[in-house]
Amino acid sequence: MTEVLKLDNIRKTLIRLEETLIFGMIERAQFLSNDVIYKKGAIPIENYNKSFMEHLLEGTEKIHSQVGRYTAPDEHPFSSELSKPIIDREYEWPIKRNSININDRILNLYINNIIPLICKKGDDGNYGSSSVCDVNILQALSKRIHYGKFVAESKYLSDVEGWNKLILEKNKDKIIEKLTDAQVEDKILTRVEIKASAYGQDPLSDIKEYKIDPATILRIYKEHIIPLTKETEYLYLLERI
Amino acid sequence: MTEVLKLDNIRKTLIRLEETLIFGMIERAQFLSNDVIYKKGAIPIENYNKSFMEHLLEGTEKIHSQVGRYTAPDEHPFSSELSKPIIDREYEWPIKRNSININDRILNLYINNIIPLICKKGDDGNYGSSSVCDVNILQALSKRIHYGKFVAESKYLSDVEGWNKLILEKNKDKIIEKLTDAQVEDKILTRVEIKASAYGQDPLSDIKEYKIDPATILRIYKEHIIPLTKETEYLYLLERI
Repeated sequence: MTEVLKLDNIRKTLIRLEETLIFGMIERAQFLSNDVIYKKGAIPIENYNKSFMEHLLEGTEKIHSQVGRYTAPDEHPFSSELSKPIIDREYEWPIKRNSININDRILNLYINNIIPLICKKGDDGNYGSSSVCDVNILQALSKRIHYGKFVAESKYLSDVEGWNKLILEKNKDKIIEKLTDAQVEDKILTRVEIKASAYGQDPLSDIKEYKIDPATILRIYKEHIIPLTKETEYLYLLERI
Repeated sequence: MTEVLKLDNIRKTLIRLEETLIFGMIERAQFLSNDVIYKKGAIPIENYNKSFMEHLLEGTEKIHSQVGRYTAPDEHPFSSELSKPIIDREYEWPIKRNSININDRILNLYINNIIPLICKKGDDGNYGSSSVCDVNILQALSKRIHYGKFVAESKYLSDVEGWNKLILEKNKDKIIEKLTDAQVEDKILTRVEIKASAYGQDPLSDIKEYKIDPATILRIYKEHIIPLTKETEYLYLLERI
């Protein structure tokens, strides 16, 4: 097994991404929900019929694709119109090449479930700033959730025969059950809550006032990020055999 | 005086930017310095003769200019080739319209002084990821430093006559002296160090291991960010009269 697939190393990456995600959500929470930026056509853009935020997302991805972002095995674009990279970088592919990209679901989840949890409802006109935060969070969410592929590959290699049997049966329940490590999940949730408490308040203030309630961030992990990561692991295993 | 110019409100914005800057620098510190991304032409890009990182910076600014970023009084682009905004947003201008933009100096400072302080020297091939962090930090640095215009306007309004006299004399030393509030600066530095300590380490680890030494972040504030903010205040006052 290559270094990058050792579960300890995968966990280090996931832990780093926790910080990016928590920092990102705290940044977004300073603005109101600004729902208009998520509605297709609500802010008219020439030759474009999606939302204002998606316009920024797709533009950002186009630029990032030029610096080679989406040739890496742990990066997945939301948009289909990308540019050719200006640098050639050969990435190692410690996982199997695959076609899994669940960013559509991540985008829906973000707009419909996460934004209402982290932002007060309303319109403060900060459309550009809010969208810039959204793009950062979406990129981190996508990376976190698709990192499930690395988790799945690592687990697969530790018991090829056992996995092959379940995969051939296409037994989703059993696969998800075998993928689940309740102890590890509890550890993630505890850690996320502690980090959200540490980063989400002014360390100099006497009053414990959180920019986002740590319980909310914990809930986003528990109800959305962890299940979608497991879904990615499942989809990857179906293609792995 | 409008709300936004009250020193208390200006300070709130500056405090928020501390978090963005500290979070951003911690993110960048996970990669090596990757000096090649800052060297003009070192990574060949078609029809472009600046550095790889600047290419990403300019591309990002072009996209952000479309969402109206640079029509705001507290935003300043690094590049000159921007796009027309797709939304019309009328910003209040609580400060005098002016031509001050010291991003050239900020870019030099960042590449030559800040990167060597926060990153281990070396090349890990993470050019895209490093550049993405760079763009985030540069945007936050530029906003923080140019916010000096708001500080200067606020101070100017509190003693128009006194300031006019000094400005007409173009007495830089005396202007900087009058702009300096040693007590406030000490407070900023103390706060920055505490935040850098709180955010820069894993709250779950027993070992105090910082992603960036808090003393380094303090030094960046003391030697670079605060002096350049005062320089912006000075330049603004020269145009203010």
